[in-house]
Amino acid sequence: MLNFTVGPVMCSDEVCAVGGEQVPYFRTSEFSELMFENEKLMLKFAKAPENSRVAFMTNSSTGSMEAVVMNCFTEKDRVLVINGGSFGQRFVELCEIHDVPHDVLKLNHGQKLTKEKLYEYDGMGYTGLLVNIDETSTGVLYDSEMLGEFCRKNNMFYVCDCVSAFLADPFDMAHCGADIMITGSQKVLACPPGVSMIVLAPRAVDRVQNAKVKSMYFDLADVLKNMERGQTPFTPAVGILRQINARLKEIEAAGGVDVEIARVAAQAQDFREKISALPFEFVSESPANGVTSIHPLNADAYEIFLELKDHYGIWICPNGGDLKNTVFRVGHIGYLSHEDNTTLINALKEILIGVGCSGN
Amino acid sequence: MLNFTVGPVMCSDEVCAVGGEQVPYFRTSEFSELMFENEKLMLKFAKAPENSRVAFMTNSSTGSMEAVVMNCFTEKDRVLVINGGSFGQRFVELCEIHDVPHDVLKLNHGQKLTKEKLYEYDGMGYTGLLVNIDETSTGVLYDSEMLGEFCRKNNMFYVCDCVSAFLADPFDMAHCGADIMITGSQKVLACPPGVSMIVLAPRAVDRVQNAKVKSMYFDLADVLKNMERGQTPFTPAVGILRQINARLKEIEAAGGVDVEIARVAAQAQDFREKISALPFEFVSESPANGVTSIHPLNADAYEIFLELKDHYGIWICPNGGDLKNTVFRVGHIGYLSHEDNTTLINALKEILIGVGCSGN
Repeated sequence: MLNFTVGPVMCSDEVCAVGGEQVPYFRTSEFSELMFENEKLMLKFAKAPENSRVAFMTNSSTGSMEAVVMNCFTEKDRVLVINGGSFGQRFVELCEIHDVPHDVLKLNHGQKLTKEKLYEYDGMGYTGLLVNIDETSTGVLYDSEMLGEFCRKNNMFYVCDCVSAFLADPFDMAHCGADIMITGSQKVLACPPGVSMIVLAPRAVDRVQNAKVKSMYFDLADVLKNMERGQTPFTPAVGILRQINARLKEIEAAGGVDVEIARVAAQAQDFREKISALPFEFVSESPANGVTSIHPLNADAYEIFLELKDHYGIWICPNGGDLKNTVFRVGHIGYLSHEDNTTLINALKEILIGVGCSGN
Repeated sequence: MLNFTVGPVMCSDEVCAVGGEQVPYFRTSEFSELMFENEKLMLKFAKAPENSRVAFMTNSSTGSMEAVVMNCFTEKDRVLVINGGSFGQRFVELCEIHDVPHDVLKLNHGQKLTKEKLYEYDGMGYTGLLVNIDETSTGVLYDSEMLGEFCRKNNMFYVCDCVSAFLADPFDMAHCGADIMITGSQKVLACPPGVSMIVLAPRAVDRVQNAKVKSMYFDLADVLKNMERGQTPFTPAVGILRQINARLKEIEAAGGVDVEIARVAAQAQDFREKISALPFEFVSESPANGVTSIHPLNADAYEIFLELKDHYGIWICPNGGDLKNTVFRVGHIGYLSHEDNTTLINALKEILIGVGCSGN
C-alpha cells in the first residue's frame, strides 16, 4: 500500500529494520545513552533554548496534550485557545475537563489567523495560549512567530502543539518563545505511533516541577526526574524509542532539520502543482507543508478514500464528522517521493473519469 | 542478547517480522477487523464471562492501573489493597492520588497471602479490592480464586492486575469473579511494550459507562464506545496491536491458553530445578510461573546483573530500591527454551567461581 495519510506514515527501510529486531531490556546504561541522544537531537531540531528538556511519553499525542494542560495550567489561569478544527476543539475540551478557565478564538475550517483577528484578544489578561501550529484536520498553519510575539507582549505561557508541524514547517522554539512544543512519533518523524514527545523550555520545566498534578502517569515532574538518568518512570515503548533514535540520526546525517523541512515542502509543492488542474479546491488559506486538505468539487470525499484504498492500494486520509463527505487530506510526510505523487494523481484522474467528473 | 527479564521479553520470529513491516493506516474496516479478533482472543484467553469487553490502551500497564482506579472507584468507596511489593505499593499511591479511601493489607517481600490473613478483613464494609495477582517485584502469586470468593462474600468490586500473570498462571475470570483484568503487551504476550489491555466483565462495563472521569485519555467509556466499531479514540500503537494479533493467533494455533500456561510453568520448573544446587535462595513463598525472585547468599545481586549483561550477553532483571543488592529476578516468559536456562545457569556458576562462591 502507498500511504498518503498523516499518520501512521511510511517508514524508511532503516526504521523498519529496527522495528523487526528484538526489543532490549531498558533499565541499562545503554538504553539511557540512547535516550540522551534522542533528547539532544530533539532539542536541536526544535531549536529549543538552552536548558530545555524533553519528556518522552508512551501515549498518543492527545495524552501529551492532556498532560500539558494538567501540568501547566490551573483554575487560576485564563487561557486563550485557537480553535480552527478538531484538534483546536480537543484543547478546548481538555480545558473544560480540567477546569482551566478559557476563551476560544474560533476560526472557520481552513481560515487563516490574521494579526488583526489575534490582536482583538490583546491586553485582556490571558495567562496562556494553546494552539495547534498545524491544525491537522484542515492543514492550516498558524504563524508561530506572530503568536509568540503576542504571547511575549501579554506575558502568556505559550503552548505549541506541533504534532504534524515539527520537521515539516519552520519552527524555532527559542526565537518564537514557545514554552512547550508537543509532537508525535508517527508524523514527520515517520516512526510507528505510540510515543509522543513534549519539549519544555526552562520556564515550562520550572512550572511542571512546581505543579500539583492529580495523576501518576501524566506527572511530568516525575518524567523529567527519571529522564535525568535517561529513564522513564514506567516501561516505555522501547522499540519505538529505538526507531526514533534511528530516524533522528538519519535526519541529522542527511543535513538536519532544515533539509528535512525543505524536503517535505518540496513534496507538498509538487503535489499541489500536479493536482491544480483537477476539479478540487484547496481548503486551507494558510497551507501547512505536512498535509493538503482538499474539497472535491464534483465527487464525494469519503468515496474517493474508499475507492483509492480498495482499488488502487493507496491510502489518503479521510476527514471525520461534518467534513466526512466534503474533505479529504493528502499527507506529504513519511517515506514518499514525487513519483508517488504522480501515482496518486493518476489514480485520482481515473476515479474522476469513472464518476463522470474528469474536470474538462 | 539472551533476555530473561520480565519485559520487554524475546519475541517470536513471526512477531518480529510483523514489527519490521510498514504500519498501515488504521481508520479502516481492515484494522477494525483485526481489533475485533484481538478482543475475541483476549476474552477467550482470560476466560472472561459473556458480554465482557476489552479496552486496548496505548500506555504502560501503570497507565491502565490508573485508568481503572479513576474509572471504577470514587471517594465513596472503601477499597482494600494487597501490598506485598512495589506494584501493590503503586495501587496504594494511585488510591492516594485519586482520593479513593483505602486500607492496606501489607505483606512482607515474598510472603504468601493466607486465607487466615485475608479473612481478618472480612465483613468490614470494603467495596473493592485491588491486587497484583503476580506481584512482579518479588514473583509472589496470590490466589485469584480465594480472593474472588472473599470479594463475592463481601460484595466487593474485584480488580486483578494480571500484568505478568496473564498466560503464565491459571486464571479464570468468570470463575473467580474478577470484574477487571489488566495486562500488558510485553509480558507473556511477548510483544514490544507500549500497549496495555483492560478486560472488563459486564459489571465493570456498566460501572465505567456511568463513571464521571476527569480525564480524556483515560476515559474508559469513550474507549469502549470507540471499540464498538473496532477503533480507539486516539491514534493507538497500531504496529504493536498488529504484533499482538499475530501473537494471539500463534497461541491459539499452538493449543490455546492452557498450553501456553503449561509451557511457561515448565520453563519455570526447569530453571528452578537447575538452580537449586547453587547458593541462592528463593524469595517467594508462593512462586508465580512467570518469574523467579532470587536472593544470592554470597554475592551482590546487582553485580551479578551487570556481570551477566556485560560479559555474557545475558539480561536478567535487577530489583530496585531496597532490594537492589540482595534480589534479582529471572523471567520465564517470552521466546525462551530449557537450553537457554542451561546457558544462564552455566554463566551463573562461572560468576560464582569468579567471586569465590562456587557453593561447595
